Amino acid sequence: MQEITVTTTQRTQFIDITRFIAAVVKQANVTEGHCLIFCPHTTAGVTINEHADPDVVYDISNMLGHLIPPYSNYRHQEGNADAHIKASLIGSSVQVIVQNGSLLLGTWQGIFLCEFDGPRQRRVWVSIK
Amino acid sequence: MQEITVTTTQRTQFIDITRFIAAVVKQANVTEGHCLIFCPHTTAGVTINEHADPDVVYDISNMLGHLIPPYSNYRHQEGNADAHIKASLIGSSVQVIVQNGSLLLGTWQGIFLCEFDGPRQRRVWVSIK
Amino acid sequence: MQEITVTTTQRTQFIDITRFIAAVVKQANVTEGHCLIFCPHTTAGVTINEHADPDVVYDISNMLGHLIPPYSNYRHQEGNADAHIKASLIGSSVQVIVQNGSLLLGTWQGIFLCEFDGPRQRRVWVSIK
Repeated sequence: MQEITVTTTQRTQFIDITRFIAAVVKQANVTEGHCLIFCPHTTAGVTINEHADPDVVYDISNMLGHLIPPYSNYRHQEGNADAHIKASLIGSSVQVIVQNGSLLLGTWQGIFLCEFDGPRQRRVWVSIK
Repeated sequence: MQEITVTTTQRTQFIDITRFIAAVVKQANVTEGHCLIFCPHTTAGVTINEHADPDVVYDISNMLGHLIPPYSNYRHQEGNADAHIKASLIGSSVQVIVQNGSLLLGTWQGIFLCEFDGPRQRRVWVSIK
Repeated sequence: MQEITVTTTQRTQFIDITRFIAAVVKQANVTEGHCLIFCPHTTAGVTINEHADPDVVYDISNMLGHLIPPYSNYRHQEGNADAHIKASLIGSSVQVIVQNGSLLLGTWQGIFLCEFDGPRQRRVWVSIK
């Protein structure tokens, strides 16, 4: 298992971590397998989406903020209930096939850490089996 | 593959199953791998989120009920269309890294069975590779 | 890794691909493992839900269209921002346990390609480890 650290700078932010994951995969020297990219936080998640146009992840983040507003009649009293809800909708991990020692992604796909309660330092765990 | 059974007592309920999964992992005696926690039902799911404050999963469940109301102009005539929709949004499985024979979870993370059409007896399948 | 191709005929469409995945698993001749079903597109996804009553996936698709309308104040200018958002909510992959050489699914579960920006020809990648 390898750990990546990501420093986020905004409360809500999608950060393209594809190149960091690709570097871990290259270093692991595994020809074929399944790469599990896991976020060990409960107010952040991981998703795969378009990384060519940054407006795409802006729209995803913005729509999530519209559907799940930061303030509502939440019971959780830490002011980040919205971030927890978004984390469960987006999910805490993604899986990517490793083939010929590389991540097998579609043409437009990138892997994003989804910060929902930043700014913070976040960790992402990468494991290939 | 090991099966866990969980008895739910409400229509909508998030049940912390972390200790049951951890017991299966311990018993499996696998040092390193990927643990797949799979829910074989279509009106329930599995998610990872905070297990310290029960208000967190209350808020997740409540917001899902707000976004996807139990009654709407659904075509599915069994009265549980909302539960099916929630199941696809939350997802039917999660993956956790196994390291040194234990589940590798973040400090605040727990694994929850998400009941959306209870009360029922539910099954969860656990497999490590 | 095996590739399945699916031709969609509508903008939004859930297509049951269970039998194609099952055929790949049978051909792979793997007794036990984890089957990763991965969608390499950013405006489509994969989900597991009921395949007995087609109204179920109609309701899922319809509710997603209600929550995430096709036109809003999106920044992404290709007219498919809604499809990208839906793809991240549904997810780009699912995992199923393989046991005795077969997919281990619940009684009512089927695997669906979720088209959010069709009609198109789509690919699904299947890998068992």
